Amino acid sequence: MAKESPSDVEKLRHTAAHVLAHAIKELYPEALPTIGPTIEDGFYYDFYNLNIKEEDISAIETRMRDIIKRDLKLKRLEKSKKEAKELVKHNKFKQEILEELKEGEITFYQQGDFIDLCRGGHLESTSQVKNFKLLKLAGAYWRGDAKNPMLTRIYGTAFFAEKELKEYLTMLEEAGKRNHMVLGKKLKLFEMHEQSPGAPFFYPKGAVIFNELIRFISEQYKQRGYQEVITPLLYDKSLWETSGHWEHYKEDMFILKIDNREFSLKPMNCPSHCLMYRNLVTSYRDLPLRLADFAPLHRNELKGVLAGLTRVRKFSQDDAHIFLGEDQLDEELLKSMDFVKFVYKDTFQMEIEVRLSTRPEKRMGADELWSRAEQALEKSLKKKKMQFSVDEGAGAFYGPKIDFLVRDCLKRLHQVATIQVDFQLPIRFELQYDGQDGRKHTPIIIHRAILGSLERFIAILTEHFEGKFPLWLSPVQAIVMNISEQSRQYAKDVMKKLIDAGIRAEIDISGETINKKVRNAQLQHINYMITVGDKEQQSRTLAVRTLDGKVKFNVKTDDFIADFIAKIRNRELAC
Amino acid sequence: MAKESPSDVEKLRHTAAHVLAHAIKELYPEALPTIGPTIEDGFYYDFYNLNIKEEDISAIETRMRDIIKRDLKLKRLEKSKKEAKELVKHNKFKQEILEELKEGEITFYQQGDFIDLCRGGHLESTSQVKNFKLLKLAGAYWRGDAKNPMLTRIYGTAFFAEKELKEYLTMLEEAGKRNHMVLGKKLKLFEMHEQSPGAPFFYPKGAVIFNELIRFISEQYKQRGYQEVITPLLYDKSLWETSGHWEHYKEDMFILKIDNREFSLKPMNCPSHCLMYRNLVTSYRDLPLRLADFAPLHRNELKGVLAGLTRVRKFSQDDAHIFLGEDQLDEELLKSMDFVKFVYKDTFQMEIEVRLSTRPEKRMGADELWSRAEQALEKSLKKKKMQFSVDEGAGAFYGPKIDFLVRDCLKRLHQVATIQVDFQLPIRFELQYDGQDGRKHTPIIIHRAILGSLERFIAILTEHFEGKFPLWLSPVQAIVMNISEQSRQYAKDVMKKLIDAGIRAEIDISGETINKKVRNAQLQHINYMITVGDKEQQSRTLAVRTLDGKVKFNVKTDDFIADFIAKIRNRELAC
Repeated sequence: MAKESPSDVEKLRHTAAHVLAHAIKELYPEALPTIGPTIEDGFYYDFYNLNIKEEDISAIETRMRDIIKRDLKLKRLEKSKKEAKELVKHNKFKQEILEELKEGEITFYQQGDFIDLCRGGHLESTSQVKNFKLLKLAGAYWRGDAKNPMLTRIYGTAFFAEKELKEYLTMLEEAGKRNHMVLGKKLKLFEMHEQSPGAPFFYPKGAVIFNELIRFISEQYKQRGYQEVITPLLYDKSLWETSGHWEHYKEDMFILKIDNREFSLKPMNCPSHCLMYRNLVTSYRDLPLRLADFAPLHRNELKGVLAGLTRVRKFSQDDAHIFLGEDQLDEELLKSMDFVKFVYKDTFQMEIEVRLSTRPEKRMGADELWSRAEQALEKSLKKKKMQFSVDEGAGAFYGPKIDFLVRDCLKRLHQVATIQVDFQLPIRFELQYDGQDGRKHTPIIIHRAILGSLERFIAILTEHFEGKFPLWLSPVQAIVMNISEQSRQYAKDVMKKLIDAGIRAEIDISGETINKKVRNAQLQHINYMITVGDKEQQSRTLAVRTLDGKVKFNVKTDDFIADFIAKIRNRELAC
Repeated sequence: MAKESPSDVEKLRHTAAHVLAHAIKELYPEALPTIGPTIEDGFYYDFYNLNIKEEDISAIETRMRDIIKRDLKLKRLEKSKKEAKELVKHNKFKQEILEELKEGEITFYQQGDFIDLCRGGHLESTSQVKNFKLLKLAGAYWRGDAKNPMLTRIYGTAFFAEKELKEYLTMLEEAGKRNHMVLGKKLKLFEMHEQSPGAPFFYPKGAVIFNELIRFISEQYKQRGYQEVITPLLYDKSLWETSGHWEHYKEDMFILKIDNREFSLKPMNCPSHCLMYRNLVTSYRDLPLRLADFAPLHRNELKGVLAGLTRVRKFSQDDAHIFLGEDQLDEELLKSMDFVKFVYKDTFQMEIEVRLSTRPEKRMGADELWSRAEQALEKSLKKKKMQFSVDEGAGAFYGPKIDFLVRDCLKRLHQVATIQVDFQLPIRFELQYDGQDGRKHTPIIIHRAILGSLERFIAILTEHFEGKFPLWLSPVQAIVMNISEQSRQYAKDVMKKLIDAGIRAEIDISGETINKKVRNAQLQHINYMITVGDKEQQSRTLAVRTLDGKVKFNVKTDDFIADFIAKIRNRELAC
């Protein structure tokens, strides 16, 4: 989209952040600037001791425009630690940053009388920041830690071309209208309650979507040789010690005491599947073993970062663990990739992007095993001729992974599927099998999820489809409405036929006008609006209206049902 | 079964318990008898300071027979509190019991030199205890409280007729073979692990049964106007304070701290459904609202009482809450009873017994509402012409209930379904709706579960069917086995057809003899054993063997599949 190289846009946004801090210092001299980085699509700046409201934003923008007009040059100043200390003596946050810097690498940037400790990457003058916009306010802890003071964060963005800024703001507006929590409430799909932070309530209509997604994946499991299991949620500490979670993941788990032992609500399914492996696998003939689990998982996310269905404390994954011999790894990875492709390309017709995430700093296991796992993933991507980028250090603590991101209709990227190779856990759990050679072998585990968190995936779908779900996922697939008092009984007869055929149908035989009834149904995004009057009753037919406004008359009920069932079977996207 | 009135059998068993205590005092003089009541089908006696093993039981029985032969008369002795204290001065447990007794109601029973503080109900002589058997040892806390000392419990039974005792022991042996945990392990259905006490692991085959039961009930929900929801598991204390659980149920909940607030894992779904009601119901037109939930529930059962799938800490119910107006109560209760009848009589063809449980001592709400609720339940039972007994004081703390018990093939009773009427919770949650009269009304809640705990229900089914599940529930419904090397590919073709038709089929194309293959399949209780050899391959047919040993030849695959699907659709019990 942008004609400039990313670093140019970054310089622009970084300069915009300085203009923002400059404006704040002029308007609120008591506020202390802390950090102000660029982020994807924009920038933010965090301030201490700044108490402002949304309605103050326009005045801040006005002052920013004023500073831009002043055409101030950005000067880079190299300083000694001693000089620097003097410059930040009234700002404890900058002092903290300064302490981490070495002599010789300390720079400041100055524009007019505003000066800021900064590594740089700026345009030459404030006048180059022409097309910017402040977007929203938020709270954020200093350094993201709840034990530190709360800061005020101001988000903004900037573009070189006015057109780009406008397009971006239109996209944001569109995203706002599509916000899944707004739609979730309006369509009675799901909602949050303060008494269970981070754990969504799926109302009947949202539960339909949730259960249909599970049914979709379960059907695939039967075809693809997966087996579903049902597992406990609470496990003794000793299990997490074996798995390594107690060491690497403890702060993200909910822990409680039972019978004077420490238990945790499971954040992942892998350890429970390792326990099952021991009772299910004896020899190579039992492999690969593909265990699938929709169990609810709990992770102790900070309350402050919880957001709708996308950052939650309780969620379910279409999670599976494939236990296999090393000679089966390549083939099984390809099968997993086919599964991803089937779901995203063939079924949801969404674009995917692929990232290979390699060993992180905080990890367990020998480097040689990490290398083998990374190579296996890379090899399979190349074999599938998949374009991918490499995200160094972003792997899980037990192994490298391939992440799949989908692009929604607003071109936003969302992480969804993941395929991870794990040599570590089988060793920690001392899992074995008798090989064809008569010797004991250690299996490998592929951790994989296709939809990922069902909660997050439902959020993505809700925004992607703007609440107009494809027929197979739609909470209410059809509504039968009578035009006249006389056609009331006929409407009921039609309704019964639809329900018996397994269609999620509702009926509106209220005294409202047919126009009002249709309008209500449209607001609910019901896929098929069936109206029946005297004419339909006499000919035993239906008038069928779809959400795109098309109407078909003289449709026989049996034909409607047959067509409907075919569409559902193929999980067609179009109504 | 017994010709004597229950109290005669109780006297017999109570006397047998005294004979047991007498024998223990002679063999282990340092042991202290505590309590020894009769229970259903037998008796037990708890001893302090008695260290014995299973292999000691036969010597104890021998000594009991000796005491029986002595033909000792049981003498009733009335004592003053002072005299009694002298008699129990060496037994702190009996002292504790004595303290709770009032002057004038203290009696002892003596046989030979054995004397025991006892309310009575005995036969005249030890010689009348002819047919007894000690059954097992167990640990039990004094007064069931884990803070008290651990005692040794000896279970036994006694009958007047030798034949009855033999029948009972045969039944126990049969029950032992059918024990669901033994079968669960053998058939790889489910198992327990020490790292998650009281929470079953369902292996792939057990998960099939679990999910099929949910599917069965879900289908009924669609027909019967229920709506499924998905709800969080962790809730803030304030929710439980509103519902009354914090006051009445706290010791049974798992509690943990999050963000310095107390949360509990939900033991029941009702409060979460009350939260949902507020967003789903405005007026009488929205009622009845039937919310169904399969969420996993957690209850903090004492570790000592956990037993297989029948006493667990984690379980799921086919739970639903029906919110309705008072004028809808009678009709809705009848509908719930029809649902129970459909599941147990029509589908599982099991006998049911009905109990009406009335207000318990520990309860909430006005007596007038309790009376209305009890009357509604009783009225609906009478209207359905259902035989029922009344269990005074056994209701839930929020309302009276009807419990349904099934009798399994060994004639044992198990509590399964429940229907409860609740006027209290809607008041506590301040639930309302606009009535047809334009005024605000408070709804009533029916709490109901049909299968009850799915875990327990699976235990009952496993024992009832001895692991030979009806086709629709069976983990593996068919297995294809090749007779000759040449028919291997044909076996694979048949297998693929079965899988595509949605049949849970396995294949055995190993080099084993066909007899061995069939035997293996029989041990797994696979419903259809399909053998294919050269003859079948040429004629494109199957030889189909059922578990009852019958074989049909020349079966066309398509006919087999059509017949199979019809049986599944009707959920037929016979294969």
